[in-house]
Amino acid sequence: MALVCFLNVFPENGLKRQNRIPRAVNRPQRQRALLSGTRSLFRGHRAVSRVASFSLSCVSTHENVSETPDSLLRENDRHAGFSTSRDLKHLEGLPPVHPQMRARFESMIRAAQDSICKALEEADGSGKNFHEDAWIREADGGGGISKVLQQGNVFEKAGVNVSVVYGTMPPEALQAASPGAVARNAGYGGGERVPFFAAGISSVIHPWNPHVPTMHFNYRYFETERGMWWMGGGTDLTPSYLYESDARHFHGVLKSVCDRHDSTYYTRFKKWCDEYFLIRHRGERRGIGGIFFDDLNDRPAEEIFNFSTDMANHVVDAYVPIVERRKHTPYTDEQKRWQQLRRGRYVEFNLVYDRGTVFGLKTGGRIESILMSLPLTARWEYDHQPAEGTPEWDLLDACKHPREWL
Amino acid sequence: MALVCFLNVFPENGLKRQNRIPRAVNRPQRQRALLSGTRSLFRGHRAVSRVASFSLSCVSTHENVSETPDSLLRENDRHAGFSTSRDLKHLEGLPPVHPQMRARFESMIRAAQDSICKALEEADGSGKNFHEDAWIREADGGGGISKVLQQGNVFEKAGVNVSVVYGTMPPEALQAASPGAVARNAGYGGGERVPFFAAGISSVIHPWNPHVPTMHFNYRYFETERGMWWMGGGTDLTPSYLYESDARHFHGVLKSVCDRHDSTYYTRFKKWCDEYFLIRHRGERRGIGGIFFDDLNDRPAEEIFNFSTDMANHVVDAYVPIVERRKHTPYTDEQKRWQQLRRGRYVEFNLVYDRGTVFGLKTGGRIESILMSLPLTARWEYDHQPAEGTPEWDLLDACKHPREWL
Repeated sequence: MALVCFLNVFPENGLKRQNRIPRAVNRPQRQRALLSGTRSLFRGHRAVSRVASFSLSCVSTHENVSETPDSLLRENDRHAGFSTSRDLKHLEGLPPVHPQMRARFESMIRAAQDSICKALEEADGSGKNFHEDAWIREADGGGGISKVLQQGNVFEKAGVNVSVVYGTMPPEALQAASPGAVARNAGYGGGERVPFFAAGISSVIHPWNPHVPTMHFNYRYFETERGMWWMGGGTDLTPSYLYESDARHFHGVLKSVCDRHDSTYYTRFKKWCDEYFLIRHRGERRGIGGIFFDDLNDRPAEEIFNFSTDMANHVVDAYVPIVERRKHTPYTDEQKRWQQLRRGRYVEFNLVYDRGTVFGLKTGGRIESILMSLPLTARWEYDHQPAEGTPEWDLLDACKHPREWL
Repeated sequence: MALVCFLNVFPENGLKRQNRIPRAVNRPQRQRALLSGTRSLFRGHRAVSRVASFSLSCVSTHENVSETPDSLLRENDRHAGFSTSRDLKHLEGLPPVHPQMRARFESMIRAAQDSICKALEEADGSGKNFHEDAWIREADGGGGISKVLQQGNVFEKAGVNVSVVYGTMPPEALQAASPGAVARNAGYGGGERVPFFAAGISSVIHPWNPHVPTMHFNYRYFETERGMWWMGGGTDLTPSYLYESDARHFHGVLKSVCDRHDSTYYTRFKKWCDEYFLIRHRGERRGIGGIFFDDLNDRPAEEIFNFSTDMANHVVDAYVPIVERRKHTPYTDEQKRWQQLRRGRYVEFNLVYDRGTVFGLKTGGRIESILMSLPLTARWEYDHQPAEGTPEWDLLDACKHPREWL
């Protein structure tokens, strides 16, 4: 899920704590409170369909809405750039960002979400569509759209989220938001909240067949007060069985997109990916990587936006041909069991290391959107070790010792 | 797994990093290195059976041994108490500890491990025995014995670990070791390693049948330099379906043991358990609790040792009658599915919140012993909500709003 979840998680200003009240009784009251308490968030899409789950000690501030809004941004919030009333020295040399970048990034990820889900529905072939949940943030700005396809023909669990959130976050959240964010925003006092804006798309696709790999991608745009901005993202593959031709195809598509934007991108971002997805306690990556980048703002935002757009628009080309090639491959119970053990590793990475997931869980994000990344099922056996020379051992070896595929 | 894993995890002095070398080639060399490099650790049990798994970036320093040692303590290390050369003011008022407490705690947990495993084998009725792995710490002092029964008749995965480890740990490890440890050991400089000793037993029992609850317990003894000591532990129940009679039996046994030692223990430690096992991002506990305590040193160690011993010796009485009562209860696929969803929550608690597990994973403990606590299989569905009034809803309600059972 990578940094995905930041987009669901920044703690709200004025988080409301409520006692547990039966839903049926509470719904009309909550709807009225929601709609009168916030400004016109969505044009013509005000109906709140149901109350998100909440409990005594962990109140969700995300309200599901019945219709998908045209924009998750308020009309007045579509222009990039926070107040620049503070010391701007740290911004010297920061390339400019287009004033409409917020709205443009949202449009890009919304379009990518639609087209990727459509392609995945076709590859699934079950006639099932992605189930859509749209939600808004009660107290602060923004919301999200979660699309999930569960138990299709090919896909066990496939999720594609977009989120647009803004408001203020505690300084410690900056550290989780990106490694470079704290340094860039130095000067905030202890406990002082930092205004931010974040928009992103994130996805994890878990297929049934152990010969079809899991795929993850995520592209995001951040702003913080004082004109600071950056982008991050990545696309990576987690097979249970290693087909070199699949690895070459996947990395090949990513490289060809990278090369159109910067001849150094693929090499740098492939290495970054291998470093980021390390399950440190196992000494192995969760898969065979792809690309990963963060904190990117070394050139005009326009260029990085174009790169992110191009990457998001080629997720289908990188992944779906592999799905088509492998989805009818027969498999044994033993192969399914190995896939389940690898799914266990996926869970370990996401719950223990993934910055977005861990931060999201600890700071009150929309849990169902954050944990959409977890597989439908996973397995842990005591001291399981594949025998040397087996296909399972080969995959594990590739996870321990990242290979060059191109 | 609670604080279990501390006993497997403290990072070693002089952790050796090795390149990946095929096991067959490397084994004799490693055996020689191990046996010549450490003092006589086990009397008469020197044969190293195989090399523990290791990899390029995460080297295990735990070596499996072929025979179970009589003691995990070196002869010279059996007496409680570190050097008292530092300022002792903070120790004023600390009750005394018996000089043989290290060895006595080890004997107690070893005996408990044997008797509990025997009782569980009988309840399982498959004729399968717990598989035993004994391991020693290469560079530093101590080792452990992991006992695992996988895929029996009644138990899907049952593990009972004992560990005895000592050496030095970084100050930040103190925080994880117990909430009070840092304060008690104030005065260590930045980065200065703290000598410590820790011994404990820990266990998680996951049955197949969704009507038979999962049970966890763990009892541990810590010392740090300057004569500081404390004990901690607990026993708790994680059902998928709530039988009030089972909850009353389980809590009743725990309370009757507590009451023999201090009339306030059950109430205090039941509440502490409900607080500790909270899955904060869900606003629910992982189960219906039991007792949990930590940092206990407010009376002579002898008394707390006797309490811990009594608790460990009554795990079987608290749990096995419930197993016997429910193990033949028929169940549906839907009930199994609900159990699997609850197992997913168990994984979330252990990987995200459990101090011992998280610390262990991040600092190089014996992974297989730490993650023995995870269920064989688990499940995550997007936005699963049991319908109000169903048995699933009732269990969830008890996890959200801890009840008084007695």
